Amino acid sequence: MDMRKLVGQNVKEARLTAGLSQEQLAERSGFSQQYLSGLERGQRNPTVVTLFELSQALNVTPVDLIRP
Amino acid sequence: MDMRKLVGQNVKEARLTAGLSQEQLAERSGFSQQYLSGLERGQRNPTVVTLFELSQALNVTPVDLIRP
Repeated sequence: MDMRKLVGQNVKEARLTAGLSQEQLAERSGFSQQYLSGLERGQRNPTVVTLFELSQALNVTPVDLIRP
Repeated sequence: MDMRKLVGQNVKEARLTAGLSQEQLAERSGFSQQYLSGLERGQRNPTVVTLFELSQALNVTPVDLIRP
């Protein structure tokens, strides 16, 4: 299982479900739009603390972001 | 929620359930016993790839390691 890709897909899905653009998620989460863009393309390897911060900004749980 | 502490507790619980010492888990996972000791004490901030590798060595899923 490629965790980078899985997390990227889950973040993108949660972002779209929340009706947010990457810029809006960047503003809410404090991460750069460039970082989020790479993350959604499966090119980042976020830590569990980053996962938690993203889940808070997306109003989901950390589990939702690594669930297959 | 302190993700470092949560992951540390879950890793320790899964390790004990599997009947493994930290040394045995270190051998299986490829991580050092020192790293695992710090992780279980909530002093590490593992990436999602590390989470996956640990879950494989513990025969659990990555979700099991970040579930509250």
